[in-house]
Amino acid sequence: MGILNKIFKKSRQPEGDGIFYNQMKALLGFAPLTIDYYQRAFIHRSSNKTDENGNAINYERLEFLGDAMLGAVIAAHLFSEVPTGDEGYLTKMRSKIVSREHLNELGRDLNLIKWVKSKVSAQHFGENIHGNLFEAFIGAIYLDRGFVYCEKFIFEKVIVPYVDIPKLEGKVISYKSLVIEWCQKGKKPFHYEVYEDNGTEGQKHFGVKLSIDNKVVAKARATSKKKAEEKASQRAYFAFQEKINKK
Amino acid sequence: MGILNKIFKKSRQPEGDGIFYNQMKALLGFAPLTIDYYQRAFIHRSSNKTDENGNAINYERLEFLGDAMLGAVIAAHLFSEVPTGDEGYLTKMRSKIVSREHLNELGRDLNLIKWVKSKVSAQHFGENIHGNLFEAFIGAIYLDRGFVYCEKFIFEKVIVPYVDIPKLEGKVISYKSLVIEWCQKGKKPFHYEVYEDNGTEGQKHFGVKLSIDNKVVAKARATSKKKAEEKASQRAYFAFQEKINKK
Repeated sequence: MGILNKIFKKSRQPEGDGIFYNQMKALLGFAPLTIDYYQRAFIHRSSNKTDENGNAINYERLEFLGDAMLGAVIAAHLFSEVPTGDEGYLTKMRSKIVSREHLNELGRDLNLIKWVKSKVSAQHFGENIHGNLFEAFIGAIYLDRGFVYCEKFIFEKVIVPYVDIPKLEGKVISYKSLVIEWCQKGKKPFHYEVYEDNGTEGQKHFGVKLSIDNKVVAKARATSKKKAEEKASQRAYFAFQEKINKK
Repeated sequence: MGILNKIFKKSRQPEGDGIFYNQMKALLGFAPLTIDYYQRAFIHRSSNKTDENGNAINYERLEFLGDAMLGAVIAAHLFSEVPTGDEGYLTKMRSKIVSREHLNELGRDLNLIKWVKSKVSAQHFGENIHGNLFEAFIGAIYLDRGFVYCEKFIFEKVIVPYVDIPKLEGKVISYKSLVIEWCQKGKKPFHYEVYEDNGTEGQKHFGVKLSIDNKVVAKARATSKKKAEEKASQRAYFAFQEKINKK
């Protein structure tokens, strides 16, 4: 078991080598220039690493930097995306997007934890490590490539897949409940079915299909059953909207 | 009086013309590309301006944007400037730098209020208008030229003249009190004298000279007597430090 664990850990934590570089490049969608920044973004304080001046080397300072960059990028996005929103609205929406819960979800979905170098085992990290790693990773991007690349990464990995403004506004709390309500009103039978449950350590994937009137109307994959159901519901909802608008 | 007021107002508030463009260029230290953003940064909500879709045109949304950019630029500066500071230290230092009081001081020193377009008179603005205008102005720079120009402006106008890390750390509360203490210990007579009191509407300037042992050791100019005294004390303090270090 001990040997298996070691092999497993080794393959998951490459040492500043070509594997890590390629993984980072794939995650970023562009080439890292200074790989050290990304390495630092995964060093847990328990490693007790220090530089030649005795300053701690871990990802905690990068969190501070990444948090600030994330805040600025989301602010700029909301500013241009919602021209009707006043200062209070923009502030409220931003805090929803960068909430601890949301950042943890982002970090977890990107499975950042698999690169962590630590002297304590993963069970001791606590839930917030996912969000902290996400912030630190943004901080590393800023140091490596500057603000515009932070913007590019946040747009692709946060804004496009996660920022659903009507939902954040609370106008739509759950697409699943909208779909169920719509089916019940129309007396249509509906059914959510898990067709895929692909669980590997750290990164789980679920596939869910939604049938209405015994026909599959939408499919979606996500990191939890609940999220996959919600995604499938959203797709079904937008497909219905389109149909209604065409009539 | 009414006519004088009108003439005065007109000369202070040019209408998107060459004068305003040149004033902005001088303040920015680079050429604005889209002057409209800077014009918007001075439109007070009392103007009740709206665009063709009925959205309000004033500087309040720009405050949100500028606040975020300022936070990011200061974060990046502190991150690189204080490699020994942990996340908590960096967060605390940033909030001191971007405190409401500090932003009001910055906006007041740049005399941004002179460009405000408003339907209410300046007495009704309240103290925070200075900081709000400063934030909105940063927001306009972001829209016009992007993050790197925000950084450049904030560096020149905020960091270099205002960000004194030892003082912010509370290690030095007041250079004036340090100088007085030092004089009293050495039984040296000292004297602060206002040699200039140049008060024009909106932009006041005071010149203060500090004499020790009946010799002028430092001079400084600032927008208040207190600030000029502090600046002169700081200069005297650093001059003494240099002397001491040479010995």
